Amino acid sequence: MKVDGVHYRSIWFNDETGKVQIIDQRWLPHEFRVVDLTTRKDFTAAIRDMWVRGAPLIGATAAYAVAVEMARDPSDASLADTWNVLHETRPTAINLRWALDDMKTLLSPLPASERAAAAMTRANEICEQDVEANRMIGVHGLEIIRSIAARKKPGEVINILTHCNAGWLATVDWGTATSPMYHAHQAGIPVHIWVDETRPRNQGALLTSWEMASHDIPHHLIVDNAGGHLMQHGQVDMVIVGTDRTSAHGDVCNKIGTYLKALAAADNNVPFYVALPSPTIDWTVKDGVAEIPIEERGGSEVTHVQGKLADGTVAEVQISPDGTPGGNPAFDVTPRRLVSGLITERGICDASPEGLAALFPERVLD
Amino acid sequence: MKVDGVHYRSIWFNDETGKVQIIDQRWLPHEFRVVDLTTRKDFTAAIRDMWVRGAPLIGATAAYAVAVEMARDPSDASLADTWNVLHETRPTAINLRWALDDMKTLLSPLPASERAAAAMTRANEICEQDVEANRMIGVHGLEIIRSIAARKKPGEVINILTHCNAGWLATVDWGTATSPMYHAHQAGIPVHIWVDETRPRNQGALLTSWEMASHDIPHHLIVDNAGGHLMQHGQVDMVIVGTDRTSAHGDVCNKIGTYLKALAAADNNVPFYVALPSPTIDWTVKDGVAEIPIEERGGSEVTHVQGKLADGTVAEVQISPDGTPGGNPAFDVTPRRLVSGLITERGICDASPEGLAALFPERVLD
Repeated sequence: MKVDGVHYRSIWFNDETGKVQIIDQRWLPHEFRVVDLTTRKDFTAAIRDMWVRGAPLIGATAAYAVAVEMARDPSDASLADTWNVLHETRPTAINLRWALDDMKTLLSPLPASERAAAAMTRANEICEQDVEANRMIGVHGLEIIRSIAARKKPGEVINILTHCNAGWLATVDWGTATSPMYHAHQAGIPVHIWVDETRPRNQGALLTSWEMASHDIPHHLIVDNAGGHLMQHGQVDMVIVGTDRTSAHGDVCNKIGTYLKALAAADNNVPFYVALPSPTIDWTVKDGVAEIPIEERGGSEVTHVQGKLADGTVAEVQISPDGTPGGNPAFDVTPRRLVSGLITERGICDASPEGLAALFPERVLD
Repeated sequence: MKVDGVHYRSIWFNDETGKVQIIDQRWLPHEFRVVDLTTRKDFTAAIRDMWVRGAPLIGATAAYAVAVEMARDPSDASLADTWNVLHETRPTAINLRWALDDMKTLLSPLPASERAAAAMTRANEICEQDVEANRMIGVHGLEIIRSIAARKKPGEVINILTHCNAGWLATVDWGTATSPMYHAHQAGIPVHIWVDETRPRNQGALLTSWEMASHDIPHHLIVDNAGGHLMQHGQVDMVIVGTDRTSAHGDVCNKIGTYLKALAAADNNVPFYVALPSPTIDWTVKDGVAEIPIEERGGSEVTHVQGKLADGTVAEVQISPDGTPGGNPAFDVTPRRLVSGLITERGICDASPEGLAALFPERVLD
């Protein structure tokens, strides 16, 4: 998508320098920094410390990490070790494991001498597949927006609420939840986005607001508390969120607070959609609430907030008394009964075992 | 309650100086400042700009404002003008109007020469009544906590979630939602409080955390997004919140985001209680969702966050891109169907017309 009118992806292989480059998202929206990832340590830091975030982008980054490491040491031990080290960086994002398994399956049978080239080719393919999957999510999601528009007066604005950043910055391009928004905007349908701040890390305030502004899509930043009230008063036509892991039965693990928005949507008959490329589905998990482990992050993310001071420098402020302990579960699981539908690259389905099985018959376990 | 072991109220008449004093809550928890309110302008600024906040405390402050103004000019015109000017400061808090009407009803029939003394006596009474009402809310609420404790193993912690600050800082003393917590803690029942941050103004992070720490009550600060997940996983035994205005039918207007917690509580069979002194009930309103006007505050409260820098100074950081518009509804209304009960100074009742009428038969309209 666009940054100051220039097309960017969130990660790319730079043919001229022979290096993988990313947008270091820790500095957005206040600074736009592109950095090289050259060593495995760079890649693990980038994923663990959230220079990159978002399930699909984490998967793509991990794939490049394997490729870069294979160029250094293509041995079986190196491959196994790289899988382990990267897998530990972020426990919730299923795409991370998906990408690592995909690379391992491809590379293991190959002679060591062929691994580096094959790995880089595959990492590039994973990126292209992600872009295409997200584009198709937009194509399918656009139809939902069109159907809402058809029930409104011509030109009337469609209000869409989103939580966290499931934008192009969370994927290689297009985004998942944002792809239908971008497609609708490009199709001339007037959309307005309610951007949830998404405490504690403020991905909505920092990233989704920035994406919307960069593409001239009308939006308002709201606190995470506000969505229920807006839905109660008819100011939200639909909710679209992304997901870090969706169970084979359709339960949706996503950024903490998603479940609260799903409850409010159900209580007010607002359609609640989840956009996901299929690598985000964990076919081994059925009951998402019971089975998906939830990452507990440091309490300082709750007690401290980063932002820009009046003088333009970026600083962190403490919002609570000295010594206040913070509790910080990073994700929650929205039970499938609260989900109106899953928007995938293959189309839209019910959030149910049957719905997913119909779209992905090859993945259904016995 | 206590600040560094010393007993304080949130507002008081200082007999020695002859002045009304408050804790200027804008600086908490980073600084503890007591200020005099001497002119009507001081009082209106204190309410409007939230040096004091919380429905009961706003009411008490307004009562003192009338008393101070009557000492300056006890005319009918002054009384009417003071009512108008103060009523405009915060539209949602019903206690503000209640206190102003109470003072007007008392003072109007009196000769001007008697108004100043009568007004000050009544303002002091309003404070004492608030303290006693909140104490009784604690006595009644304690019974709910005892009954939860009785179903647990001896010594097992009772987890209570609260939103915003309905603490002693929001009242004259004891608090509303916090009063049962203080009573339980004093009775030796082990409670642990999940303190919702309460964006955008962070009253939970700033004030409730500080109150809990000041009284050695175990607590964790959590983002507003986290409560649903905690309830889903059995980590919340009950929710207690305050209210800025409760309808005669039992609908509860409170800080934005309360409705989302009520939805989560209902979805997980967690008891959801609202603590309120009876002046918080608006007997003229039936359907709270449809009838209660919601204050829309400035967008900068959403885009900027105040806190303490590493060097100890208090500063504001901008968390979104330059120019991001913020949407900021300050309250929402929780429909009575989601409320387990109302804890009042007279006892606990259903959140229903019948429940409230049984406790307050004298207030039921024809």
